[in-house]
Amino acid sequence: MRKLLLFLTLVITHAQAQEKLNLMPWPTAVNQLESRFRIDDSFKLNINGAVGKNSIDYASRFISRLSGRTGIFFTDFLPVENPLDSGLQISIAEEKSLEVGVDESYELKISGASINLLAKTQVGAMRGLETLLQLLSADEKGYYFIGAEVNDAPRFVWRGLLLDVCRHWMPMDVVLRNLDAMAAVKMNVLHLHLTEDQGFRVESKVYPKLHQLGSDGNYFTQEDIKLIVSYAAARGIRVIPEFDIPGHTSSWFVGYPELASASGPYTITRKAGVQDPTIDPTKESTYKFLKGFLTEMAGLFPDTYMHIGGDENNGKQWDANPQISKFKEENGFVSNHELQAYFNMRIAKILTSLNKRMVGWDEILDKDLPKSIVIQSWRGKQALVDAAEAGYDVLLSNGYYIDLSQPASYHYLNDPIPENTELSSEARKHVLGGEATMWSEKVSPETVDSRIWPRTAAIAERLWSPANINDINSMHQRMGVISAQLEEHGVTHLKNYEMMMRRLVGQENVPVLKILIDVLEPVEGYARGRYKKYTMQSPLTRVPDIARPDAIVAREFNLLVDKYLKNKNANLKNDIKEQLLIWIDNSKKIKKLAEVKPEIREILPLSDDLSKISIIAMQALSPNKFHDASWHKSASSMLAEAAKPKAECELKVIEGISKLVSATK
Amino acid sequence: MRKLLLFLTLVITHAQAQEKLNLMPWPTAVNQLESRFRIDDSFKLNINGAVGKNSIDYASRFISRLSGRTGIFFTDFLPVENPLDSGLQISIAEEKSLEVGVDESYELKISGASINLLAKTQVGAMRGLETLLQLLSADEKGYYFIGAEVNDAPRFVWRGLLLDVCRHWMPMDVVLRNLDAMAAVKMNVLHLHLTEDQGFRVESKVYPKLHQLGSDGNYFTQEDIKLIVSYAAARGIRVIPEFDIPGHTSSWFVGYPELASASGPYTITRKAGVQDPTIDPTKESTYKFLKGFLTEMAGLFPDTYMHIGGDENNGKQWDANPQISKFKEENGFVSNHELQAYFNMRIAKILTSLNKRMVGWDEILDKDLPKSIVIQSWRGKQALVDAAEAGYDVLLSNGYYIDLSQPASYHYLNDPIPENTELSSEARKHVLGGEATMWSEKVSPETVDSRIWPRTAAIAERLWSPANINDINSMHQRMGVISAQLEEHGVTHLKNYEMMMRRLVGQENVPVLKILIDVLEPVEGYARGRYKKYTMQSPLTRVPDIARPDAIVAREFNLLVDKYLKNKNANLKNDIKEQLLIWIDNSKKIKKLAEVKPEIREILPLSDDLSKISIIAMQALSPNKFHDASWHKSASSMLAEAAKPKAECELKVIEGISKLVSATK
Repeated sequence: MRKLLLFLTLVITHAQAQEKLNLMPWPTAVNQLESRFRIDDSFKLNINGAVGKNSIDYASRFISRLSGRTGIFFTDFLPVENPLDSGLQISIAEEKSLEVGVDESYELKISGASINLLAKTQVGAMRGLETLLQLLSADEKGYYFIGAEVNDAPRFVWRGLLLDVCRHWMPMDVVLRNLDAMAAVKMNVLHLHLTEDQGFRVESKVYPKLHQLGSDGNYFTQEDIKLIVSYAAARGIRVIPEFDIPGHTSSWFVGYPELASASGPYTITRKAGVQDPTIDPTKESTYKFLKGFLTEMAGLFPDTYMHIGGDENNGKQWDANPQISKFKEENGFVSNHELQAYFNMRIAKILTSLNKRMVGWDEILDKDLPKSIVIQSWRGKQALVDAAEAGYDVLLSNGYYIDLSQPASYHYLNDPIPENTELSSEARKHVLGGEATMWSEKVSPETVDSRIWPRTAAIAERLWSPANINDINSMHQRMGVISAQLEEHGVTHLKNYEMMMRRLVGQENVPVLKILIDVLEPVEGYARGRYKKYTMQSPLTRVPDIARPDAIVAREFNLLVDKYLKNKNANLKNDIKEQLLIWIDNSKKIKKLAEVKPEIREILPLSDDLSKISIIAMQALSPNKFHDASWHKSASSMLAEAAKPKAECELKVIEGISKLVSATK
Repeated sequence: MRKLLLFLTLVITHAQAQEKLNLMPWPTAVNQLESRFRIDDSFKLNINGAVGKNSIDYASRFISRLSGRTGIFFTDFLPVENPLDSGLQISIAEEKSLEVGVDESYELKISGASINLLAKTQVGAMRGLETLLQLLSADEKGYYFIGAEVNDAPRFVWRGLLLDVCRHWMPMDVVLRNLDAMAAVKMNVLHLHLTEDQGFRVESKVYPKLHQLGSDGNYFTQEDIKLIVSYAAARGIRVIPEFDIPGHTSSWFVGYPELASASGPYTITRKAGVQDPTIDPTKESTYKFLKGFLTEMAGLFPDTYMHIGGDENNGKQWDANPQISKFKEENGFVSNHELQAYFNMRIAKILTSLNKRMVGWDEILDKDLPKSIVIQSWRGKQALVDAAEAGYDVLLSNGYYIDLSQPASYHYLNDPIPENTELSSEARKHVLGGEATMWSEKVSPETVDSRIWPRTAAIAERLWSPANINDINSMHQRMGVISAQLEEHGVTHLKNYEMMMRRLVGQENVPVLKILIDVLEPVEGYARGRYKKYTMQSPLTRVPDIARPDAIVAREFNLLVDKYLKNKNANLKNDIKEQLLIWIDNSKKIKKLAEVKPEIREILPLSDDLSKISIIAMQALSPNKFHDASWHKSASSMLAEAAKPKAECELKVIEGISKLVSATK
């Protein structure tokens, strides 16, 4: 009996001690403890075992970030020499090089007296340090780490972000700050999309006209690349370069028109979309050139994997070139796909000779290609299934297209191996993981971070955490916290929001504009191009560029409506009304503002719509007598009108207001 | 009679047409016209004459910035080939290289039908384009350039910003974005302070241990330097490197202890302040080394001027070294100043042999130095006068120390040649201009922009505009507008303000914290170091780092009080009371917030003070019966207490509230 009582007491105390853990990605196993490890200026850490420069630097940055978040002037800002009884003790078991499948597991134990972090490799220690920093909390006594036992390892070995630095040039600082942010959510691959119709973004000393004539002067020098690679490695991130061939190659041909399948001259493409210029796969000189170029790049990028693109070859130049038709005939190729397969095979041989494994988009899948290549699925899930069943390693990007302004929840539930998968157990082993893809047709260095973050943190969790960690609300709650933490790395997804409004309307008018933009999202998918004719020079400073996926205020309003409709609580009703009145009132202010701020005139219809549906919502919350058939008819027609995209944006409170209207039936 | 009437009509119409011009720096002569040059997507520009790549690129960026500010999808985002009748016609008279004194003048005429920009040089055209962009305005019909005739040229030829990239490392993006911002306010010199006790920040291929061992890995590669120099030149900005010798050299000695005046080993200094390590000026090997190093750097930095520092040599290592004492004796040097003059002379000879002109801090002034050297005055104005009278070219930095958190108005009124100058007319010709100095002991890449901007725009105006353009209120009004415009270049002085608050207290609590920080400024001068023991690793994320010089809300409150006290208007009184009640109410919220946010506990006394003096101000605004002698006594003692710095910050509404109290007497 005494035992049972004691047990009960413990459970209760334990329950009291529980506080919400804002961990992301969520660990494989975590057990919260009652203890709190108090932090003061005497905090110290030591690393022992297979320590390297990267882990020491990471640990030093950990102390600086802890200092930045707490304002504490630590006595030791660098790891101390001798192992510790108290403080943070990091132990690294083995020296391992950074490559696909490197052990990233760690064990973390935070007690009141000490913190122990055990990892198999330096990379595992980095992952554990991020978890520890996410466990920072505070109470009336000061800062502490929440007591916990964590046992963690990733579900997938390849958790990447593709950054397209071609369509819009993304300078070094964009790359470096995003590498830091990636490491904060335990991502481990940066896929640099380096060549495109719109720009050739890497220095070639072997063929200098590539970057000299193909980049408008905007490219990474080889020194830059070395810095990116070492900066990434210091954060446990591999860098995979992509040289997209044979299509997407206009910028190559400005300097080397002889590579093309049609005669030049060529210029750098300023439009988006699939272009005709394509490498000529029939000339031996092509392979000589590519071997020279890829050999140079192989020396620059140490990772085993190299991406050759292979997507969206429209075949027009091939079809129009009699020489190429003849080549096809002579070799018995009945389709351009077969010709491209031949091209890919030649490239695969070059890469093999360079000790590289080839990665390509799903178009390259062909039975004749060696099983060492990796297929990245983007057009649909079937390619992933087909390739994995055929014995190829695969990566999922379909469903992770963060350039398309889809909600985080959509990406979050996009599992590379879903519960209902048709993949055989053998094929599942070929699923390496996935990559979020940040294509840059509609983003500038100013807006790109707001398309990457915070949604990529949800993708990072999908690829790291167990499949059953999939609660949308929990994800959103934690993602909000992590999102703000990422700002310490300089990413601009939060801070450029009001900055861009200031440019449009001035600081003093930001609050008015913000009320509207807070409930707007840019249209999803490829819809933006349907409203305006974009080139790479078009402005990306308008409201659809400011508005962000997952409009938080809209989401919260819709959740508030759900909550109210469940129990019809009067306070909640008042909260809803208060918000509606703000929106109604704001439409007049926006109108007035637009008189002297021409750039926001395009969003007046959205502002009107918001006001009108807010009035409808007010009516829906009024006594029943209003809600006759004709009111319902006009309400739903107004809601349908308001649901239509305008100024490349969508109002995201239609859902909540529609529910209020429906509830009156 | 008819003529007179017509004249009157014109004058009146003209007066009606006047709108406030937000020009900064203010031009030498500007005449506002009634016309408006309308901007739509057909806007075009052409450049003819002595056109170069830099002016074409500048003009292209001008179109992009115009597009970014207006959201207009221009048909032509690049200059067009043929001269224009309508649109913007830029004419450049001569091909001139970028050097001190290059002609920066321009004439700009904006009529309703066309815009003409005439400049002597490419740089002049750049300056004119900035003026034009500042004349962008909008009305109910859309965007336009305000009609005007501008005739403009700088008062001083040297308008610089010193950036210390040593104490805290400032990576490339900090440098590049600030170069853009500098060009926006027509500054023309970036002075890079590249070597210090705390870091050696440039790659040396001749002596690689300098950057390898002296920088913690944080340095500019030679490629980086080339990019900085060309990026600056493309904006009409010269780059002057500073290699600070013989003091401030600890980081040199980590790799090359043989250069020092005392035996090593040496480490990179982590503290601020004057350090002992000093180059040994008595050994020939020193000069051999420096000649090798300076020759290498002379090849990297094309400008004629090279800065050798020369400041703050405390002489301790020299005094303690018998070899050096002997050398002094043998050469008849009675002081360390004489020994340093010898050293400087030797360095001057090296620089002369490299076709460079030497610049140094005012300590180097010595009658024996050749007249070709330039003296930069920092310790006081007298050095500038002495040097100029002695026939040396001079630069003013005393009074432009933007790291010291002094108000913009102080810097603004700091004229290199004030009205009451004691400079002879001959000596005045030696005043080249001045430099704002951004020393980085107490700033990180995250905070540095908020110390540079917007105050440096006021300094830019002081150095460009006529001396009689010196109205503080006009400056503040225009500086506020320009400050927001600078954000298009990526500078973070505005957007990092709330970001840093988010880190401390979370997004949801920013409004509460902001109410207090809005009226705080970091303590001025070197006071911060008196409160906390700073090293280069200390956190720079606390409230004194978030608070900015020239707290705008405080300034506006103080102005509101002035306005009210002038006419005792009831509305103004209500405005004051409303503000006071917000401050009183907010102190409870801050207190509550501090319970769970330990880092803001240090500002509780400031919050309490603000609340207490706000209560006093409310009492001062109440009927007279309150205001007896004892009330006055306690009020002034409370105000005196509130005026004391706390948490390295000062409350900036003391002035206004004190006036309210005094007014009750």
